[in-house]
Amino acid sequence: MRKYRGHCKLVLKPGSTEDVSKILRYCNEQMLAVVPQGGNTGLVGGSVPVFDEIVISLGRLNQIREFDEVGGTLVLDAGCILELVDHFLAEKGYIFPLDLGFSVMVLCMEMLRKNNTGYDLKQLFVGAEGTLGIITKASIQCPRRSPAQNVAFFGLESFEKVQQAFREAKGQLSEILSAFELMDSGSQDLVFQVTKNKRPLEKRYPFYCLVETSGSNPDHDGEKLQAFLECVMDKGIVADGTLAQDETQIKTLWAWREGITEALGHLGGVYKYDVSIPLKQLYQMVEDTRARVDAAGLLGDSAEHPVRDVVGYGHMGDSNLHLNISTRHYDERVEGILEPFVYEWISQHGGSISAEHGLGLAKKKYIGYSRNDTMVGLMKQIKNLYDPNGIMNPYKYI
Amino acid sequence: MRKYRGHCKLVLKPGSTEDVSKILRYCNEQMLAVVPQGGNTGLVGGSVPVFDEIVISLGRLNQIREFDEVGGTLVLDAGCILELVDHFLAEKGYIFPLDLGFSVMVLCMEMLRKNNTGYDLKQLFVGAEGTLGIITKASIQCPRRSPAQNVAFFGLESFEKVQQAFREAKGQLSEILSAFELMDSGSQDLVFQVTKNKRPLEKRYPFYCLVETSGSNPDHDGEKLQAFLECVMDKGIVADGTLAQDETQIKTLWAWREGITEALGHLGGVYKYDVSIPLKQLYQMVEDTRARVDAAGLLGDSAEHPVRDVVGYGHMGDSNLHLNISTRHYDERVEGILEPFVYEWISQHGGSISAEHGLGLAKKKYIGYSRNDTMVGLMKQIKNLYDPNGIMNPYKYI
Repeated sequence: MRKYRGHCKLVLKPGSTEDVSKILRYCNEQMLAVVPQGGNTGLVGGSVPVFDEIVISLGRLNQIREFDEVGGTLVLDAGCILELVDHFLAEKGYIFPLDLGFSVMVLCMEMLRKNNTGYDLKQLFVGAEGTLGIITKASIQCPRRSPAQNVAFFGLESFEKVQQAFREAKGQLSEILSAFELMDSGSQDLVFQVTKNKRPLEKRYPFYCLVETSGSNPDHDGEKLQAFLECVMDKGIVADGTLAQDETQIKTLWAWREGITEALGHLGGVYKYDVSIPLKQLYQMVEDTRARVDAAGLLGDSAEHPVRDVVGYGHMGDSNLHLNISTRHYDERVEGILEPFVYEWISQHGGSISAEHGLGLAKKKYIGYSRNDTMVGLMKQIKNLYDPNGIMNPYKYI
Repeated sequence: MRKYRGHCKLVLKPGSTEDVSKILRYCNEQMLAVVPQGGNTGLVGGSVPVFDEIVISLGRLNQIREFDEVGGTLVLDAGCILELVDHFLAEKGYIFPLDLGFSVMVLCMEMLRKNNTGYDLKQLFVGAEGTLGIITKASIQCPRRSPAQNVAFFGLESFEKVQQAFREAKGQLSEILSAFELMDSGSQDLVFQVTKNKRPLEKRYPFYCLVETSGSNPDHDGEKLQAFLECVMDKGIVADGTLAQDETQIKTLWAWREGITEALGHLGGVYKYDVSIPLKQLYQMVEDTRARVDAAGLLGDSAEHPVRDVVGYGHMGDSNLHLNISTRHYDERVEGILEPFVYEWISQHGGSISAEHGLGLAKKKYIGYSRNDTMVGLMKQIKNLYDPNGIMNPYKYI
């Protein structure tokens, strides 16, 4: 939406943890506000300097420090680029534990996974978006790279059937199930509109799922996936499906999921909500939002309608939905229709906002919808405790 | 060691979160110290009232509140007994994510796994042993119960070979590897001494490993385990091995690992250290401790020696070692030889104390060995913030 514009007269690029520490001590004494910046991959404006904050860029803290090839523990600087880390790990037969599907990320400040001594402070700093302190180094537990990968792509008639397919996949694919992605027809239409690629399935369906398995034995995994496919077809859960036969086809199928963000960006401004909702109501959120935008007369095929489509996709594995409202041009009525409606809806259905991207600038006034007053109060106390002068990434968060 | 004796004139058994809240408000106003008690399974005295603290027992908060059969999310009261929860989940085809091997426990105060809004306060309370507040309800992500389980038991000539076997297991068994347990010969001798059970392998070895797989397809898992066995035998990594043929044999093999604690308790007092150490040095800790106790003339086969044996066992998967010093009778020289030696050793080797059991009463003076002054300072500030009157489980922790 081109919503955030940064203002900054000074960028500092410390080369060590000690440098970071000295900068923070000086800025704290002089009451100078700072904004830490890592890879700048955030979507909610968390790393944007709002007025005249000093940017502390971690770009020079980019060394991989240690890797234990038996245990899989990686120690690295906070400014390391994901692509380079992934390349380093690939050569060792490991992967970085961050992906689109069942993403699990274990971060800790110590070399060891088990340390129950004292309070778990690292979790406070992780995800605090630089409002409590700056993480300069991390130790990450990396899983082995699986030699076998398989991908299937389905068409389904209803979200009820998507849930059934997910349940079957968890039961039958179990330990090798590495992703179960949901895409609605609208999101796939947008990808088609932009890429003009051949669709994976002949007919169109209201829902599509991409199922990925990762395991140590290609034959075993292939057998399991084949058996799963036959089961969900026989039971009428899945209307149609296709199985990738090689690496190229795997990439082609994934492009229908991973290409959604790019397609949306290509077509104009997008309101993005990254939310967690109990699985049963996951897609209801998209339908209710679409109905609301439509009822307000804002949704349509022609140029006078500001909203092109309301689409949804996400990871079934962690009840995560990406609700996207694709617009043709900026119209303040759209924002008025969406907010606080979306936040109220999530709150009423036991969900939470910002499943993956934090609060940043975009959502700070809506924290009350997913955290109660007591929790917000406890958080404010922590903030006041660790940053009494309020210099750490101000104007954001609580 | 019969080291902790509780003192208490009043036990309260609240029946709801509101009751707990009222009790804490009253006790805080009146400056009355409290000790929360859940299942009383701790080993470090964390739930023992030291002087005259009021015990708040959560025994009546024992209801399972919700279970989502698609997502596997369980919401339950904090006083639920593990055995009953496990039974409940077994009927639904799920397991409670807490085991001896690769234990992963995900706890959160919300119904959803992904909630990146604000600071991660739940992690502060989890593992704080009731020094910041009382958890009354939890939401836990439970994995599916695997229909297939296999167990193998090996004898190995050195700890170097144990590490090689572990590396091979991670590579070949990968997604189905659910436990890789280490036991030294001393620990197995103690189990034999007490149970007189037939040993799994004919000869004796310096080290034993128990490898467990859990998967969705018994044939596939059996094949993988068989191939792994052949590989580690061919390469000379494993000296001898046996594979459980049925449920009974699986239990029999596990008894050689799970029976160690009971055997130790049966033979007299035990000094127990539950520690995390980088894998390479994991067993060195046992050897160095044994050498030190021996050099002090405290270790031997006859009655005048207070120490019967120094043994070690643990989970390779998370670099966790149980160091146990089995004694015949109490002798203050033993404690003097062990502490602070053990803590210093761990600190020097980049490890941490109390991998699974927290700090409690036993280890609070040693936190400095695994957390630096800054971290301990930050923890003290949190404690003062949330419990300014110091009524929450006092005389423990930091």
